[in-house]
Amino acid sequence: MVTTEYRVSGMSCGHCEAAVRSEVTRIPGVDGVDVDAQTGRLVVTGSAAIDDAAVLSAVDEAGYEAVRVA
Amino acid sequence: MVTTEYRVSGMSCGHCEAAVRSEVTRIPGVDGVDVDAQTGRLVVTGSAAIDDAAVLSAVDEAGYEAVRVA
Repeated sequence: MVTTEYRVSGMSCGHCEAAVRSEVTRIPGVDGVDVDAQTGRLVVTGSAAIDDAAVLSAVDEAGYEAVRVA
Repeated sequence: MVTTEYRVSGMSCGHCEAAVRSEVTRIPGVDGVDVDAQTGRLVVTGSAAIDDAAVLSAVDEAGYEAVRVA
């Protein structure tokens, strides 16, 4: 499993988490999405490396901005 | 038109507003719903008086608490 971590800004509640989760989950190869509005932490898990641009674009689609942190 | 106003606590973003709007709009007789997460203000408009309990219950269904203020 390959795990990448992002910092998402602008989320404020569980609806925001759900919006981000929903978009990121659609990315081919993504097996797990862990997202927390309070910390802004988004952890994406896949069996292979997930394209960073796809994750950033999915978060943007949900209405937020993300940066890769790990 | 009859307008009633409520104060809703716990909303933080547009998703929260949408959740409240969606539930309150379903109440029979409701013609308009104006909701603002920042102020917590919810204004419900109908051609006749809307049952307070129905509004409070709809807001509860959306995951928030409301009190009638006007």
